[in-house]
Amino acid sequence: MNMQANIAPPRVDADWTDFPGLYTPEGERWHYLDTAATAQKPQTVIDAMSRALGMDYATVHRGVYSRSAQMTLGFEAARKRVADFIGGKEDEVVFVRGATEGINLVAQSWGGANIGAGDRIMLSQLEHHSNIVPWQLLAKRVGAEIDVCPITEDGEIDLDALEAMLTPHHKIVALAHVSNVLGSVLSAKRAAAAAHAVGAKLLLDGCQSAPRMRLAMDELGCDFFVMSGHKLYGPTGIGVLWAREDILAEMPPWQGGGAMIDQVAFEKTTYAPAPQRFEAGTPMITEAIALHAALDYLEAAAGEAGMAGLYAHENSLVRQTREELSRINSIRLLGPESSAGIVSFVMEGVHPHDLGTILDEENVAIRAGHHCAQPLMEHLGIPATARASFGIYSDDSDIVALMRGIERTQKIFG
Amino acid sequence: MNMQANIAPPRVDADWTDFPGLYTPEGERWHYLDTAATAQKPQTVIDAMSRALGMDYATVHRGVYSRSAQMTLGFEAARKRVADFIGGKEDEVVFVRGATEGINLVAQSWGGANIGAGDRIMLSQLEHHSNIVPWQLLAKRVGAEIDVCPITEDGEIDLDALEAMLTPHHKIVALAHVSNVLGSVLSAKRAAAAAHAVGAKLLLDGCQSAPRMRLAMDELGCDFFVMSGHKLYGPTGIGVLWAREDILAEMPPWQGGGAMIDQVAFEKTTYAPAPQRFEAGTPMITEAIALHAALDYLEAAAGEAGMAGLYAHENSLVRQTREELSRINSIRLLGPESSAGIVSFVMEGVHPHDLGTILDEENVAIRAGHHCAQPLMEHLGIPATARASFGIYSDDSDIVALMRGIERTQKIFG
Repeated sequence: MNMQANIAPPRVDADWTDFPGLYTPEGERWHYLDTAATAQKPQTVIDAMSRALGMDYATVHRGVYSRSAQMTLGFEAARKRVADFIGGKEDEVVFVRGATEGINLVAQSWGGANIGAGDRIMLSQLEHHSNIVPWQLLAKRVGAEIDVCPITEDGEIDLDALEAMLTPHHKIVALAHVSNVLGSVLSAKRAAAAAHAVGAKLLLDGCQSAPRMRLAMDELGCDFFVMSGHKLYGPTGIGVLWAREDILAEMPPWQGGGAMIDQVAFEKTTYAPAPQRFEAGTPMITEAIALHAALDYLEAAAGEAGMAGLYAHENSLVRQTREELSRINSIRLLGPESSAGIVSFVMEGVHPHDLGTILDEENVAIRAGHHCAQPLMEHLGIPATARASFGIYSDDSDIVALMRGIERTQKIFG
Repeated sequence: MNMQANIAPPRVDADWTDFPGLYTPEGERWHYLDTAATAQKPQTVIDAMSRALGMDYATVHRGVYSRSAQMTLGFEAARKRVADFIGGKEDEVVFVRGATEGINLVAQSWGGANIGAGDRIMLSQLEHHSNIVPWQLLAKRVGAEIDVCPITEDGEIDLDALEAMLTPHHKIVALAHVSNVLGSVLSAKRAAAAAHAVGAKLLLDGCQSAPRMRLAMDELGCDFFVMSGHKLYGPTGIGVLWAREDILAEMPPWQGGGAMIDQVAFEKTTYAPAPQRFEAGTPMITEAIALHAALDYLEAAAGEAGMAGLYAHENSLVRQTREELSRINSIRLLGPESSAGIVSFVMEGVHPHDLGTILDEENVAIRAGHHCAQPLMEHLGIPATARASFGIYSDDSDIVALMRGIERTQKIFG
């Protein structure tokens, strides 16, 4: 086995021992290759959560006592931190439960107000269910139609096809920034230009790009961007919807409750400005504080090259893995050569679940299944793939362990 | 000052030192009387969260590796624990972001399918904004009308009036089980009978009752019940919608995404059965685990009499507090004599915010404001109240500190 990469991975300062989740119960290293599903958390995130739930705990935006005022500052500082991380403005950041809720919010609030009978919605063949089903629910409600942009042989969204398919009837284009199955990276700028050329908005599902790439909303040119905290080395139960200020300002409320109102009367209720208008009820207070700590860890550990360095690190691991896997005749690699931290493949004669189970015995965790992307599986003509995905803590040893497990699987099934 | 209660408080085994949030930065006891806004967390909850985010962390429902299978068991055990706590069935428990989201889910999914133009929705004068605004949004969308049940002099929902006002046009009655401002307790059984007599459903906002009362869904007779984890000594970012099995089974999906589907295709998508149909995306995994720990703590600490004992404990603190406050001429007490852990009052010539600020200097935290119940404030003819609310960790010393702070306030303003 040749572990020499064509490109030396850049220095990433994350130490796997910072992550209590990367130990097996026996205290050995767990080769966790399911970071695309959810990322392990550094101890600093767990500590931030413990403090927020403990000695610092109070509600936000309401208390007249000083600890509540402090907590409010911390909660709003988290919003600012997220805005800085994605290169957006504070008032453009809406805290939601996760990326899925973010897309549902856009579909139901913006979509409900701007998409009607006869209008069209453009998705792609490789979307995650969370970027398909909310649009299907909306389309059914308002009488709109969904179009599906095909993907290239390589597994990238076919932008030539997109440009040819878009019409002035299209009100929104909603695409994965990075495919959760194939790791393929969308040229967001070109997709934005294509959408805007026909007067449509662009929503990017950033679940897989946010933890892996340097982001700047202005440069991407999108109108909506969603991401999940738990994939960003932060806690579960929190995510972010970013929307351009002028668009967010016009969007009607979606969920009603405390904190999103201006004045409530049975005769007439008026609403708070964005982003508060979209944050009904007691928010994910401690989750926001812990997400702040996660972004601090991520950028510090990414090292001098920042998130671009992390991208190169994971891209290099992908190249190594593909090179190793390509030497095995029974393995079919999916997706493009150069991808963002994700490798999907199938092994002839071995169901991905069986592979996953054998790898588990070797302390290697991969994901096997349809990855919440059944229309892509249908297109690829397979029921499932095996997927290895990398994170900031991943290194060569994970690839060595993966290949050792695959060799054992070959022997068992061979 | 006479600290003798008329009724000896039952023994509650919660030790305030179990709660790291009940210390001031100087290591003294913080007299936290804002538990109705959010409860402090016992160390066991914080520890459960740390383990779930750390050595136990994995996603649920998807991984083929053993830790993910373990986490799935833990997540579903939390659902079972919640069902047991409220006397419902496992499949009737939907995890949501909080009670606010639960009410919005019912309004938009059940309400969207069952409430139309000309139908009527019955609320009350004392509802929290979270049980008003979702219904206003629905009413506007479908052309329904909202009726408002008045309250008695004592501050209880007037059930005589409710019975007289209900008609077959009413499809739902949505009421606070315990008022977050006045502490008044609804006779849920009678409200359910009144609603069912005209063919309407009953939704109970259980935010304030769940942490304070023994619950059994069958006995209450309601059709929907919502509660928030953070008010139940658990984490933020999680809540529960309970709905009767047959009702939940008929409800259309609200948010689309992973985990809530059966099969996704661009031609036709089918959905999972409830409760999964209402849990789109990666759920609040670690929050559910920590909520489980909170319920374990709560029931263990409530002692032999269980939640009924905790109710008596807080009710006794309310009586003591009301007795003390009633000796001060400038104070007007609101709400009924016997209430669930909450006392609201106003002090002549002193704005509740000023009182709250002075009490803060004395290490006493109360809430001052409209408590997300502006229509109730309007009815009471006041802009705000001062509110002291108790929890499992509250005791006489909190009342002593509160009264000392009020006496100091009298001197400052006197």
